[in-house]
Amino acid sequence: MKEVIVRVPATTANIGPGFDCLGAALTLYNQFKFTPAEKTTIELTGSESGGLSLGLGSDNLLYKSFLKLYDYIDHFPPAVKMEVEINVPLARGLGSSATAIVGGLVGANSLAKNPLTTKEIRDLAISLEGHPDNVVPALFGNCQLSVGSRGSWQVSSIPWHSEIVPVLAIPDFQLSTEKARSVLPLEVPRQDAIFNMAHLGLLLRALETGNPDWLRTSLQDRLHQPYRLPLISGYSSVSLAALEAGAYGLVISGAGPTLLALSSPDLSPDVASAITQAWQKEGIQSKVLILELDREGTQII
Amino acid sequence: MKEVIVRVPATTANIGPGFDCLGAALTLYNQFKFTPAEKTTIELTGSESGGLSLGLGSDNLLYKSFLKLYDYIDHFPPAVKMEVEINVPLARGLGSSATAIVGGLVGANSLAKNPLTTKEIRDLAISLEGHPDNVVPALFGNCQLSVGSRGSWQVSSIPWHSEIVPVLAIPDFQLSTEKARSVLPLEVPRQDAIFNMAHLGLLLRALETGNPDWLRTSLQDRLHQPYRLPLISGYSSVSLAALEAGAYGLVISGAGPTLLALSSPDLSPDVASAITQAWQKEGIQSKVLILELDREGTQII
Repeated sequence: MKEVIVRVPATTANIGPGFDCLGAALTLYNQFKFTPAEKTTIELTGSESGGLSLGLGSDNLLYKSFLKLYDYIDHFPPAVKMEVEINVPLARGLGSSATAIVGGLVGANSLAKNPLTTKEIRDLAISLEGHPDNVVPALFGNCQLSVGSRGSWQVSSIPWHSEIVPVLAIPDFQLSTEKARSVLPLEVPRQDAIFNMAHLGLLLRALETGNPDWLRTSLQDRLHQPYRLPLISGYSSVSLAALEAGAYGLVISGAGPTLLALSSPDLSPDVASAITQAWQKEGIQSKVLILELDREGTQII
Repeated sequence: MKEVIVRVPATTANIGPGFDCLGAALTLYNQFKFTPAEKTTIELTGSESGGLSLGLGSDNLLYKSFLKLYDYIDHFPPAVKMEVEINVPLARGLGSSATAIVGGLVGANSLAKNPLTTKEIRDLAISLEGHPDNVVPALFGNCQLSVGSRGSWQVSSIPWHSEIVPVLAIPDFQLSTEKARSVLPLEVPRQDAIFNMAHLGLLLRALETGNPDWLRTSLQDRLHQPYRLPLISGYSSVSLAALEAGAYGLVISGAGPTLLALSSPDLSPDVASAITQAWQKEGIQSKVLILELDREGTQII
């Protein structure tokens, strides 16, 4: 049994109106190496691993997912040395937990000689994460729409025009998904539901065609952002700065606090520096990355 | 000044999850002939004109819209003989009022030597109708998504695969849009909003690709149909019959009571007769039409 190295992309979920159903994979990766060993251990490296330590308890999503796959196929899991290279910041709204879930499942499946189809892995990943919008693009790459119906999932890849650039602005504070979920109301005005529905439809057309007017209109949301923005210091000034620099829109990446701007290739450097400066004026340090859509999804390398 | 003949297609709005934003034009038409005359008169002909009479009061949407255009351009309206050929049943959820609004505006614009752009006519039509989902496809043809934002509209044509056939089942009772609107709640569960959003996104992908699994899943709705179905006698048996005959789904056309089934070309005759028979068993007469998507929109002929 040889070692397996799994590379999983970061993801940005929601993308404005696509709350809990839309997500896109980004060219920023965590890497998970599994080597059969005498006993199970875990080691962290990578640019975002500083200060982190991870045990083998149930809060370790990577190991939990690794075990889950063996449980699913009813095999006894081997002991493994897990070497984790973390480049996706934790608890920032960039799908770091989705990378661990997908990495653990795909790594275990590969070590077990691929008993599960990708679709089975997808469904296990969704059930471990509780929602599809990060794990699905992390697994398949590209922008993905996931629709759950009668307990089964339909997943559609959403065409993404090559001139639409994701700019990710990652501030130096964390925001837990639990907290970001707790501020959402259980009921919403019917008009807000219609608003989001229509805007999501237009967003899909905008992503496919690159139409700037449609992009500017369609990134608006009423289902989660109005409730979550107060949790993200400096949002209004950052948003204003990004739009003035030419971004089509600025939205919360996943549950935040990372913000996602979409921009044309030409203007993306201006958008990035406008965001950095606007947050700096508010006393907040941030790292702003001009990325691309990941087109490959999870790879065994 | 010569006569003008305007042909306007019927439309089916909502199409499952696309409540108040999505609509498609159908190959079924009302025709409006305007001839300059000494005094203004109106005459009705056509298969659906039986028993109808129409005065020149403000409840006559055709004449009201005709006057509206002249008011908008600040010209005194000429007296006209209006000859109306009605083939779209009234108050059934097939956009008959949208045909009158669009017909009146386009006819007046043509008599006035086209002072308004199609976009201006579109915006006037939306304001007269109060919502975009019938008037926009009636004007432009095809399937159209309309998104209102900050008082302005973005309209996107939605690709519709040639193998998707609209089957329209029109029962012999009427249902007013006002009544169908009055049963809708002002607030909805957030989960229902997310459900519709995701399903609308999948529907757009399904209409473009013709993917049968996506069509079957995506025609579901939680924002208006659950509340309106009790107003449509026999719905459950008709729905069951349509699905058993191979329809992808059966939804309410507009505010009802007409039902729209989407089907493959092969199965559409089976779907049509299954619906007719199911309603007949419930004591309801219906007319079932196998139509196509109108690709031309409103035409001056």
